Amino acid sequence: MKRAVVLLSGGIDSTVTLYLAKKKNFDCFCLIFDYDQRHKREIDSAKKISRFARCKYKLLRIDLPWKGSALLDRNIKIPQHYNALTLKHNNIVPSTYVPARNIIFLSFALSCAEVVGAEAIFIGAHTQDYSGYPDCRQDFFNAFNKVIEKGTKTAVEGKNIKVLIPLIDKTKSEIIKLGRGLGVPFQLTWSCYKGGKQPCGICDSCYFRQKGFEEAGLKDPLLCD
Amino acid sequence: MKRAVVLLSGGIDSTVTLYLAKKKNFDCFCLIFDYDQRHKREIDSAKKISRFARCKYKLLRIDLPWKGSALLDRNIKIPQHYNALTLKHNNIVPSTYVPARNIIFLSFALSCAEVVGAEAIFIGAHTQDYSGYPDCRQDFFNAFNKVIEKGTKTAVEGKNIKVLIPLIDKTKSEIIKLGRGLGVPFQLTWSCYKGGKQPCGICDSCYFRQKGFEEAGLKDPLLCD
Repeated sequence: MKRAVVLLSGGIDSTVTLYLAKKKNFDCFCLIFDYDQRHKREIDSAKKISRFARCKYKLLRIDLPWKGSALLDRNIKIPQHYNALTLKHNNIVPSTYVPARNIIFLSFALSCAEVVGAEAIFIGAHTQDYSGYPDCRQDFFNAFNKVIEKGTKTAVEGKNIKVLIPLIDKTKSEIIKLGRGLGVPFQLTWSCYKGGKQPCGICDSCYFRQKGFEEAGLKDPLLCD
Repeated sequence: MKRAVVLLSGGIDSTVTLYLAKKKNFDCFCLIFDYDQRHKREIDSAKKISRFARCKYKLLRIDLPWKGSALLDRNIKIPQHYNALTLKHNNIVPSTYVPARNIIFLSFALSCAEVVGAEAIFIGAHTQDYSGYPDCRQDFFNAFNKVIEKGTKTAVEGKNIKVLIPLIDKTKSEIIKLGRGLGVPFQLTWSCYKGGKQPCGICDSCYFRQKGFEEAGLKDPLLCD
């Protein structure tokens, strides 16, 4: 059976990606990261989703003492979505960007993939309804695939590990509709950057989630009674 | 003053690289990694070297639970240098390769560089007297620089962070002679993969170190009475 490492944050995108990878008959190994994110709640979601999907997972602790992000530094306010959208429009990366986060996550996934013999690393990045993070764009993933080709033992041995980004061009509503068809447990996912008891409804991540469910004509189970 | 992040293992190459960066008037921030390597002793060396060079440092703990390397898995024997050299000759990566290690180290260095405003990341990789690790080659670093260009906020803002590899084409003896001229405290460095009280003298890393000192016509202070 083909093997894959799946980066699982506990949000909608990574969960739909996990279910897509399973649908494509990959034996999936999920990586979950605790990087002292403000919305630590997503870690519990990711664990529950892994178990629900009957996949192995590993929780890794990542130390980023220099912070440099509103998701790490409690002194920086999480921006409201309309600010974030203006920034995106002007090609300004918002304060919720975590420096080199996807590069770090992918490098651990790559290390794991080399050892467990996985041929693919799945990540749920997309560029339609997103916050304009540079490490979510197609060009970045192309460049990372080149790093794998040039810098790994697996490549020297003539084998191939590829970062796959099946959602890259999809809108949030398309992702949600796709997930619905795959039986994704949306009730277990978490998106809000603030990580409170209920979604805040005003951060970037809440905004895209709400918009996605509305456009898909579906109800978000986190907001239902 | 220009800033740099320096990957410091505590061995000769990274220490000479640190001194080179200082010579080039960089304000250096050293990153030291505890990845449960067998030769943990090098961590103490790296700390001492940072202090000796009057540089700030940060020790980061990296979790690689899948291991996949003789440097991590105590059940795999550290190969003797003549085996390792045969492997290199046949383009076989030795068992001391740590999957994706330099990619992981560089990704943390990049995250740090974005936050502290460093324009360079120094790494002491070279390809003359080395073990044939693919993540030490020029092509790999070129590919990683492309990742920085495509995937960071710093690049979106029109600034540049570059991985610099000033030793890439140098032999070990050239590196040692260069270090001598820069006042490198070789007595504080550590190279042996086994990490015992004394260098084992037969691993790959000891072999290249001994050969380097011999060819440079110098005595290794670790082997002097």
